[in-house]
Amino acid sequence: MVANEVRGHLSMGKGNHKVPLELFALNRRRLADKLKEQKLGNAIVILQGGKDKSFYDTDVNYVFRQESYFMWAFGVLEPDCYGTVEVETGKSTLYISRLPAEYAVWMGPLWTTQEVKNKYGVDEVHYVDELKELLLNKSPKLLLTLKGLNTDSGLIAEEASFEGIDKFTVDNTILFPIIAELRVIKTHFELEVMRYVVKASSEAHRKIMRHAKPGMFEYQCESEFLNHCYGERGCRHASYTCICGSGTNGAILHYGHAAAPNDRQINNGEMCLFDMGANYFGYAADITCSYPVNGKFTPDQKLIYEAVLKANLAVQKAAKPGVSWVDMHKLSSRTLLEALKAGGLLKGDVDEMMKACLGYYFQPHGLGHLLGLDVHDVGGYLPGQPARPTEKGPNRLRFARNLLEGMVVTIEPGCYFIDVLLDEALADPKLSPFFVPEVIARFRNFGGVRIEDDVYISATGVEDLTKVPRTVEEIENWMAGKDDHKYN
Amino acid sequence: MVANEVRGHLSMGKGNHKVPLELFALNRRRLADKLKEQKLGNAIVILQGGKDKSFYDTDVNYVFRQESYFMWAFGVLEPDCYGTVEVETGKSTLYISRLPAEYAVWMGPLWTTQEVKNKYGVDEVHYVDELKELLLNKSPKLLLTLKGLNTDSGLIAEEASFEGIDKFTVDNTILFPIIAELRVIKTHFELEVMRYVVKASSEAHRKIMRHAKPGMFEYQCESEFLNHCYGERGCRHASYTCICGSGTNGAILHYGHAAAPNDRQINNGEMCLFDMGANYFGYAADITCSYPVNGKFTPDQKLIYEAVLKANLAVQKAAKPGVSWVDMHKLSSRTLLEALKAGGLLKGDVDEMMKACLGYYFQPHGLGHLLGLDVHDVGGYLPGQPARPTEKGPNRLRFARNLLEGMVVTIEPGCYFIDVLLDEALADPKLSPFFVPEVIARFRNFGGVRIEDDVYISATGVEDLTKVPRTVEEIENWMAGKDDHKYN
Repeated sequence: MVANEVRGHLSMGKGNHKVPLELFALNRRRLADKLKEQKLGNAIVILQGGKDKSFYDTDVNYVFRQESYFMWAFGVLEPDCYGTVEVETGKSTLYISRLPAEYAVWMGPLWTTQEVKNKYGVDEVHYVDELKELLLNKSPKLLLTLKGLNTDSGLIAEEASFEGIDKFTVDNTILFPIIAELRVIKTHFELEVMRYVVKASSEAHRKIMRHAKPGMFEYQCESEFLNHCYGERGCRHASYTCICGSGTNGAILHYGHAAAPNDRQINNGEMCLFDMGANYFGYAADITCSYPVNGKFTPDQKLIYEAVLKANLAVQKAAKPGVSWVDMHKLSSRTLLEALKAGGLLKGDVDEMMKACLGYYFQPHGLGHLLGLDVHDVGGYLPGQPARPTEKGPNRLRFARNLLEGMVVTIEPGCYFIDVLLDEALADPKLSPFFVPEVIARFRNFGGVRIEDDVYISATGVEDLTKVPRTVEEIENWMAGKDDHKYN
Repeated sequence: MVANEVRGHLSMGKGNHKVPLELFALNRRRLADKLKEQKLGNAIVILQGGKDKSFYDTDVNYVFRQESYFMWAFGVLEPDCYGTVEVETGKSTLYISRLPAEYAVWMGPLWTTQEVKNKYGVDEVHYVDELKELLLNKSPKLLLTLKGLNTDSGLIAEEASFEGIDKFTVDNTILFPIIAELRVIKTHFELEVMRYVVKASSEAHRKIMRHAKPGMFEYQCESEFLNHCYGERGCRHASYTCICGSGTNGAILHYGHAAAPNDRQINNGEMCLFDMGANYFGYAADITCSYPVNGKFTPDQKLIYEAVLKANLAVQKAAKPGVSWVDMHKLSSRTLLEALKAGGLLKGDVDEMMKACLGYYFQPHGLGHLLGLDVHDVGGYLPGQPARPTEKGPNRLRFARNLLEGMVVTIEPGCYFIDVLLDEALADPKLSPFFVPEVIARFRNFGGVRIEDDVYISATGVEDLTKVPRTVEEIENWMAGKDDHKYN
């Protein structure tokens, strides 16, 4: 790109989505407006961007990804920056590294502050070594830094720091809940980016459904997925490590990690459970498709698949602003248990099953999570929001609040046959009466099914951003090479 | 894979290379033997393996890669381990995390210590929480930990630590230079892995040479390269961020970083400079190919390309055990300057050019580097080895020692037209007389050429592991769809 051209957007070219700079400007404006309500006087928000991470003590770095709060506010792709937003005026300033002239040899022509201003559309750009003095000149009443708990990881967001920050009055409590809550509600600009990245990931999933064949290794599907998302759609990163479980690996929720790197050969007759999502300029997709590798469901596969699909669709029908996410989890769970009972795996009263938390033993994870710049997006258990449920099953939810217009969430019911959980349940006199042991035994090596959609909560309900075949018939048709134009 | 099967190797299946566990056992034996020469009594080497790295404060981790010293000694693919080698007996022990039973739901069946012993072929496996007691029982005279400077990054290898290490006499100076030096010389097992990963990367480069077309974006070539290496050859990681520079981007040595993410559209008539290498079970390839995107060299492109190729071949012919790498750099530099003079870009006496360090202005990087588990492999400036040269040009070398049989190094001369360096040279009265300004002007937007091979230093000379078209004729033929079976 030409560095001093004002493009007004971020894009990977090739007709791929243009992320407008207004997206970030609007986020900053929302932030300043919200903080102004707090009557903080001339407070200044200061965020510190991400740094390069080296591979241990070597000079190889991981491919850089911007920290999500900084991305949300500034859209900056490079490491080692600071950004400020002045609460009273909304004025935004970026501070970039002053690189030695010699870096041009390694990094390309060094951008001027004017070029960076043009690229990111902020009000001013200066160098990090000017940060302290320029901030002192503004005599802010408060510097607002970002510190708070990520309730998914248990880690703490690392607040901005710089030499001389002790000259300022710093508050690290006000900003976090406000900016996290703003991230929960997606603007129309953000929705368009997410629509794009979910569409791109949907396309790639559809491609893999036809690419997967008995005898292939799971990682070949991962590789082709990543290639489609990057080469065709400009998504350099995946939002998380691809989970490409076949056969019994479908029942390993975080399969794909270092000890189990999608390295199994897929056998004819087995189910695939592929959970993969691309990332476009920070924004995440997170989609799971489950299907038989050979393109034809067996009756047992159909039974479990349709049970999960029922749960998914029940939630898609019921979810809308004001509805409790915990209730949606329970609706999903109940729908699944009813279907498993109808299918002959369970017996007894479904109300009693619900009281006994039986759903947990088939789906030991929450129904879904907020989605945005993080795949498990922030805003789950903020102060003032409903606390984590204590009941087995719902206690795995990453948020327990009521749905709001503007949220993007995943709806991802699943049904897994996990030995350690089945053994536990069968040994429990409160749970074992619900099981039909000889039928459960038939499914011991089934693996699992998860059907995960990324949906936007609109004023009236759910808009499913995911565009993949979902019914048994749709999947079989698609894998047989039909319906080419149905999902565009 | 079946966890309790003794496989005797690490592999990604699909007929891809099997990395024998003997590779790591031999490395441990070499280490114990070398340390025994130091008469340390019952000393015990303790290495700490790598840990997962999260993406900032979130619950998403980077795909785990093992720390290279730990990989060299144990071949272990999972995070959070320790390993010991007892110097007197050579006995090896792995210490793994004791995971809560519940982890099986997320990670798959938890392996027993016996299963890990079978997988990695060490003498014993215990849990990390037993480390202190078991080590105390052995009453080692010394614990040898790994601490030392990585001369490429300036970072320090992080030495092992655990609760209770203060109960031992710890030495963190003896181990580093010895293990680093052992890593410099590749065993026949290691050579076979490197042969494989260089072959796989060569194949992928050849594929991209035919894939690249005017109008494509650079990252599409990166994506396809990664896909071939992973999907076809089981290499989950690249050894470094792909550098896919087209046109003037070819003159940006570390192009491809976050601020310049291979996002330019490649124009007809331009050169590509693609520096990409896969990684297989830790072992790195590092190959650069340079060619016109449309498959036909212009006379100017041919001129520069053949100048660099001459330099590359001169080094390949001269390099062998006992030869100084600094001399090889100078040979390359001289060859290039002679060719540029013959091509009309330079004038005057080449000896004088060499004295004036003119080579630096066309190639501001070293001739090549050691290659192994790190792409810039360790062993560069160890104590007792020749220090970094002070002369402009050779001072960019990552090692300055004499070649030894068993080294794997890159030979990667280049010629770049970098404005900031050309301007500097043209303004320097000692340098400017060598330039033919009107010819240099013609090349200002040329970009660059680099020709990088991965070679093994054998007893008698160089074995080039890289299998790609290298002459102008070979490249033009290959890109025209000919010579399909020539490089296998």
